[in-house]
Amino acid sequence: MIIIMKPSATREHVEELSRHIERWNVKANPIYGEGTIVIGLVGDTGAVDKDALLRDPEVDNIIKVQEPFKLANRKMHPADTVVDIAPGVSVGGSKLVVMAGPCSVESEEQIVDIARHVQAQGATALRGGAWKPRSSPYSFQGLQADGLELLHKAHEVTGLPVVTEITNPAHIDLFADKCDCFQVGARNMQNFELLKELGQTRKPVLLKRGFANTMEEFLMSAEYLMAGGNENVILCERGIRTYETFTRNTLDISAVPVLKRMSHLPVIVDPSHAGGIYWMVEPLAKAAVAAGADGLMIEVHNDPAHALSDGAQSLTYESFAETMASLRAVAAAVGRSL
Amino acid sequence: MIIIMKPSATREHVEELSRHIERWNVKANPIYGEGTIVIGLVGDTGAVDKDALLRDPEVDNIIKVQEPFKLANRKMHPADTVVDIAPGVSVGGSKLVVMAGPCSVESEEQIVDIARHVQAQGATALRGGAWKPRSSPYSFQGLQADGLELLHKAHEVTGLPVVTEITNPAHIDLFADKCDCFQVGARNMQNFELLKELGQTRKPVLLKRGFANTMEEFLMSAEYLMAGGNENVILCERGIRTYETFTRNTLDISAVPVLKRMSHLPVIVDPSHAGGIYWMVEPLAKAAVAAGADGLMIEVHNDPAHALSDGAQSLTYESFAETMASLRAVAAAVGRSL
Amino acid sequence: MIIIMKPSATREHVEELSRHIERWNVKANPIYGEGTIVIGLVGDTGAVDKDALLRDPEVDNIIKVQEPFKLANRKMHPADTVVDIAPGVSVGGSKLVVMAGPCSVESEEQIVDIARHVQAQGATALRGGAWKPRSSPYSFQGLQADGLELLHKAHEVTGLPVVTEITNPAHIDLFADKCDCFQVGARNMQNFELLKELGQTRKPVLLKRGFANTMEEFLMSAEYLMAGGNENVILCERGIRTYETFTRNTLDISAVPVLKRMSHLPVIVDPSHAGGIYWMVEPLAKAAVAAGADGLMIEVHNDPAHALSDGAQSLTYESFAETMASLRAVAAAVGRSL
Amino acid sequence: MIIIMKPSATREHVEELSRHIERWNVKANPIYGEGTIVIGLVGDTGAVDKDALLRDPEVDNIIKVQEPFKLANRKMHPADTVVDIAPGVSVGGSKLVVMAGPCSVESEEQIVDIARHVQAQGATALRGGAWKPRSSPYSFQGLQADGLELLHKAHEVTGLPVVTEITNPAHIDLFADKCDCFQVGARNMQNFELLKELGQTRKPVLLKRGFANTMEEFLMSAEYLMAGGNENVILCERGIRTYETFTRNTLDISAVPVLKRMSHLPVIVDPSHAGGIYWMVEPLAKAAVAAGADGLMIEVHNDPAHALSDGAQSLTYESFAETMASLRAVAAAVGRSL
Repeated sequence: MIIIMKPSATREHVEELSRHIERWNVKANPIYGEGTIVIGLVGDTGAVDKDALLRDPEVDNIIKVQEPFKLANRKMHPADTVVDIAPGVSVGGSKLVVMAGPCSVESEEQIVDIARHVQAQGATALRGGAWKPRSSPYSFQGLQADGLELLHKAHEVTGLPVVTEITNPAHIDLFADKCDCFQVGARNMQNFELLKELGQTRKPVLLKRGFANTMEEFLMSAEYLMAGGNENVILCERGIRTYETFTRNTLDISAVPVLKRMSHLPVIVDPSHAGGIYWMVEPLAKAAVAAGADGLMIEVHNDPAHALSDGAQSLTYESFAETMASLRAVAAAVGRSL
Repeated sequence: MIIIMKPSATREHVEELSRHIERWNVKANPIYGEGTIVIGLVGDTGAVDKDALLRDPEVDNIIKVQEPFKLANRKMHPADTVVDIAPGVSVGGSKLVVMAGPCSVESEEQIVDIARHVQAQGATALRGGAWKPRSSPYSFQGLQADGLELLHKAHEVTGLPVVTEITNPAHIDLFADKCDCFQVGARNMQNFELLKELGQTRKPVLLKRGFANTMEEFLMSAEYLMAGGNENVILCERGIRTYETFTRNTLDISAVPVLKRMSHLPVIVDPSHAGGIYWMVEPLAKAAVAAGADGLMIEVHNDPAHALSDGAQSLTYESFAETMASLRAVAAAVGRSL
Repeated sequence: MIIIMKPSATREHVEELSRHIERWNVKANPIYGEGTIVIGLVGDTGAVDKDALLRDPEVDNIIKVQEPFKLANRKMHPADTVVDIAPGVSVGGSKLVVMAGPCSVESEEQIVDIARHVQAQGATALRGGAWKPRSSPYSFQGLQADGLELLHKAHEVTGLPVVTEITNPAHIDLFADKCDCFQVGARNMQNFELLKELGQTRKPVLLKRGFANTMEEFLMSAEYLMAGGNENVILCERGIRTYETFTRNTLDISAVPVLKRMSHLPVIVDPSHAGGIYWMVEPLAKAAVAAGADGLMIEVHNDPAHALSDGAQSLTYESFAETMASLRAVAAAVGRSL
Repeated sequence: MIIIMKPSATREHVEELSRHIERWNVKANPIYGEGTIVIGLVGDTGAVDKDALLRDPEVDNIIKVQEPFKLANRKMHPADTVVDIAPGVSVGGSKLVVMAGPCSVESEEQIVDIARHVQAQGATALRGGAWKPRSSPYSFQGLQADGLELLHKAHEVTGLPVVTEITNPAHIDLFADKCDCFQVGARNMQNFELLKELGQTRKPVLLKRGFANTMEEFLMSAEYLMAGGNENVILCERGIRTYETFTRNTLDISAVPVLKRMSHLPVIVDPSHAGGIYWMVEPLAKAAVAAGADGLMIEVHNDPAHALSDGAQSLTYESFAETMASLRAVAAAVGRSL
């Protein structure tokens, strides 16, 4: 932590402030320059109250130097983390994961049919929503507990592990038996009550980046999970909100190399929500693989024109098959496989 | 709802699509123009599946015409709503509400002292956090249930109604006895599980705008509360996330006139979180009152330099007193009182 | 400037880097802490090549401490600057300036009529566009040189000083005789060729903030003008681009107190472009005055429904008169006059 | 164009408004629905004054249906445009273009050496800045006319066509003899004076997207060039400004498929400015090729640690060679070549 003093600060003031700061068990090193005085703090500055120091009338600004995430930080854990979501299905190795399925579970017939098709094309996990957070209270809210049962049936039929979104800490026990990986949606990335309780489990958590959260905040939310003891965290970039209105969100493709550099956690990409429209899924998915993503989450529907939600961005079986073929070529070009 | 067809769409295709659409009990009016064909839908288009229609290969775009919020819409309810949070303390009338207090409750002495001081200066409600959502799991998380008790004590001593943030649906009963108005924080504006359950109560809810949510999404979250039967909703603008890094957030002052025009609900402003630093609170608060806000939520602390959270943006007793004096003058200039 | 080293950096490396840095005539002070090593640079770091240092494999990050603007910086010039745009018309004192007029000059009759009306209501400068930068090449581009003549006629009739937008360095001589204050529009805030040449004149320049520029970049553009010797710079906040689509732009009201604190230059606000619609002009203008702005630029048109540009956001004579009356009350409440 | 009326609009009012609108030689089709009345306009609505209509007290909103760009629109020109920048160097075909070189030209030795190296690695055009728009007036502004001469020397030595940024309409003649393709930088994307004059030439123009401009605005700036008769326009995505601060800009990778779908013009990507740091260039470049870009613009420097500008984001010769090798593999995977 670096404290930048105002030019008007006297040497006495700086020394007194330095002594004051050392009560937090850090060492304060003042540097006196022409026109600039800074105090460099050395030690564990986690306890230092930045806000309080900003009240000092001679303090101009304070800059944090250390990244605030520890358990998720690659500096503390140089090797890539691989998260196993089921026997033989890992996220983070040379083989990319593809989690595919509908936005919402609609019926047993639908979810089993989709599971079989995506499995036949090479998907190794089934996605599908039972509880659907929707902007409008008047939109379809998901089949909820029934949807969870249907996902489990699809799992029993195909063996595909199930990834599904949880929105309420009260549902953890219910989900624990019926899915293989919790999904925390973008709108809940900073629902810390939910994160804290999921951190108490040991089941993998797919954490989606909030649509207006920085990468540092994203890693801090991963840190909430890990601080509870659950290190099975998969990061998922799914597009951010910008001024551009043509696309539903703007896929932040640079998040892939940045998150991989800052953290040891695996990083996947959801091209369906990023673009918001079916014809963007394939190019964005290829870009994600080329940029180094560890996998993809893709919406696929048996009949997108009649889907109960997100029909516009779902792939048909045919377009999913084509997308998988082109992804295999790009994966091979970057030394990975699907 | 307006469907814009591609120039390649044939008259037969448009007519078939129109018949298809009328299954949703709306009337479809095709308009054939040179270079442009549109279909105007008349009736209750709530059931029409926009996403499904976007899959039609001859559909270019679809535009929603009706605002999706109904209960919160001023068109349905032209008169201003006034929300009573306690006997004699209303939000939405000619007298502005000032909710003041610390970011976090820290001790009985602290909260009672602050409550007395802000009351003496004209505040008519006490704010204070018991559960504190923090970006870092390593930061102070609030006194939680004990904090709620202390807020209630401050209420018993001063009579000020208490506004405090709730972050978990499981806490509703606990809060119901100890506060006069639930606060839903910016990060939980789209925590629909929480909104649905608060909608089942009849206690006022202060709903903060998410830091990256549009005004329409904000009103849709109010709609979640109202659809459950709870019409006692107060909207609070608290700054949005933009590319500008100097300020913690960018106060969207235009949200005040816009929300007041679109909705009948009262609108207040939180200048403390918007600016993120104490010296911006007074100018932003004055701007809010001048723009037509129905009140303010302001952080005040007995000793900001030692506050456990948000010390940088809290006012001292002295600066709060000065701010209140200047606000009285601006309020009078726009025909309101404090 | 502070250099943050990676934890892997050796003491030898840090010392060698420090010697390397001192070739730029600054003093390098390494601080060795547990887990963190930083080098504080003291002296005039303007010449230090931050980009080059980032190539050092042991450098993690570099933080600038000093604000890069000098002539515009209040630290170097504590007193408020007052810019005189005509005899008796100053920007920056206790009397607020109101620059009013149409988006575009359309005819002699129109501009003279508007000039007379806004003058009668208390405006002290006439705004009006001769060259109009438009997003579409197919939109009205302004009357150009003829428009400039008509503005000058309106000045001769009313005595009001003229503020008008310049978009091409080649036009400076032409404008110099016909206007009292150059306006640099938002899209040209970083047209450095234009700024450099305007910096060679001594005529006041009203510099609008780019719609996606930070306040620091804004002050750096003022610095371009001032570095050329022209210190007659007026800053104008006119709304920034955010994710919100309801408003044309989001007025950054906090720019008023922030710019006034960082710089000694006068700051005015354009509520017309910020909101983009007539009914938002009055509340935003009142907010600007309450927040401490030194004046306003407001679009007024004799017949907005038939204006050649920006009709939606222009005030009628009647609404301008009402707005001026309400602004007088708010100005008085904050110790200013109109 | 669709006009949405307020629910209070009477049938008489709508009919009168429709007659009024038809003066602009379009046909107005009112549609009367329960709770919603809209008027669909058919014909060339380019002349209809949307702003004026918004002043009608019974008009609620107006929505444009037709895309405002015509010459750049793929609907008008379904086949891909290929722009020839030199004999044998085309942009838009199956072979991708790589424009490589330093941010700034620094000396003859430097630019010739870089040109030779990038050519040896497969680059087919030389980029380099002579006039450098910099945020600070105190930063290096480029060698200007001398830099242009040096670029031309490098062209004479290597035969590589030269792409360089122009910032002032007054320089067009000077540039015309010395470069093969004008570059319009992000900050000048809406410098319409410059665009209009470049539209009068027939030399290719590489148009960079403004850092906060929508794709529609980008295509409207291309339209300015094309409306002047210059159809040799290359679009370049180079990152947009968002709330994320880790990266210099956020590369909008979805711009590649979207611009290719909306327009027939070729689209290239600049991964150097997007990420702002050398280690992001390769993953972003691979993503761009995978997403369908027609080429890349990459900063390469003989000695990045001593570059006069943008050293942090420039590739060394070694890393450029590695990047080109990996790009060849990705290009092949998507059916293109380098």
